[in-house]
Amino acid sequence: MNALDSLIEALKRLPGVGQKSAQRMAYHLLQHDRPAVHRLADALTAAVERIHHCERCHTFSETSLCSVCADATRDARLLCVVETPADQAALERTGSYRGYYFVLLGRLSPLDGVSTRQIGAAELLQRAAESGVEEVILATSFTAEGEATAHVLAEALRARGVRSTRLARGVPVGSELEFVDLGTIAHALSDRR
Amino acid sequence: MNALDSLIEALKRLPGVGQKSAQRMAYHLLQHDRPAVHRLADALTAAVERIHHCERCHTFSETSLCSVCADATRDARLLCVVETPADQAALERTGSYRGYYFVLLGRLSPLDGVSTRQIGAAELLQRAAESGVEEVILATSFTAEGEATAHVLAEALRARGVRSTRLARGVPVGSELEFVDLGTIAHALSDRR
Ligand SMILES: [Zn+2]
Ligand SMILES: [Zn+2]
Repeated sequence: MNALDSLIEALKRLPGVGQKSAQRMAYHLLQHDRPAVHRLADALTAAVERIHHCERCHTFSETSLCSVCADATRDARLLCVVETPADQAALERTGSYRGYYFVLLGRLSPLDGVSTRQIGAAELLQRAAESGVEEVILATSFTAEGEATAHVLAEALRARGVRSTRLARGVPVGSELEFVDLGTIAHALSDRR
Repeated sequence: MNALDSLIEALKRLPGVGQKSAQRMAYHLLQHDRPAVHRLADALTAAVERIHHCERCHTFSETSLCSVCADATRDARLLCVVETPADQAALERTGSYRGYYFVLLGRLSPLDGVSTRQIGAAELLQRAAESGVEEVILATSFTAEGEATAHVLAEALRARGVRSTRLARGVPVGSELEFVDLGTIAHALSDRR
């Protein structure tokens, strides 16, 4: 395979990139932005060499403990369980959570072979059992798989005497009720404060 | 900047990739497809090192003459002018053209500072003046800039006594007339055979 076709094939491994956009990307880089090619190649190599997982919360980290886990000023009573580092980043951006995290790096999906072992459930239970943890907030997504994951984890935590909560389901801020789906409205009603 | 943010920034240089998709790509690669990261880094480096421009037609090529220019069995009477290697690839895929090419690597765009020099107009005129060339097919796009480019090149070719033609404008194969824009229908009428 020639260098151009190899590049197009490699770009197609990026999520959401098909043959046409991979081709457009390759042509654009070669024609208009060769410095970006070097930068991207270096960034990819550096990322895969330097980014590992925090040994405590499993999020991406260049150090053995991530910056959140290493921050002793956070609220040790709260442990928030999310599916991905992206979800964690979203929660951090809200600025309204000061506890620690545990990142599952997935969600239970028996059909795809994702079991409690893959999401680190045992490590989570161990982490949640540490003295000081008073509440585990299950912030998995509100999809069928995310809900099933939260359910399984809540049961396991309850069996060990650890209290867990779930994020409130409700109407997104800024939405007009008219355009919100009925299931969300129903949940917003039942979770009303 | 940490390795993750550097990677996200580098991915944002790809055309059509904003902050959100760059983030999704980075997370996906690091979490699910680390082998693809190495492959992409290597493909990028190899591409930028090995892919240059054909010295005769200016398309991407790993050799000083591209495979089309190096093919002596093609029809030397025809020279097709396209804007990009992607356009050339599309024409090649039709299997209905057997002449040679000249790739402008752009189109005239005075506002963006793209002049006749940037698109290699002088080299094109020299190439078109070679003995044996009987017709230059101007296959630039049917946009305002593509049409202007074709117009300027046609004038320059005519001044040198070289015949040029333009691809036929018309109704796309498989379209229902009802859904084709009026300008296209008008052109299809005037270009009717
Ligand atoms: Zn951590
Ligand atoms: Zn060539």
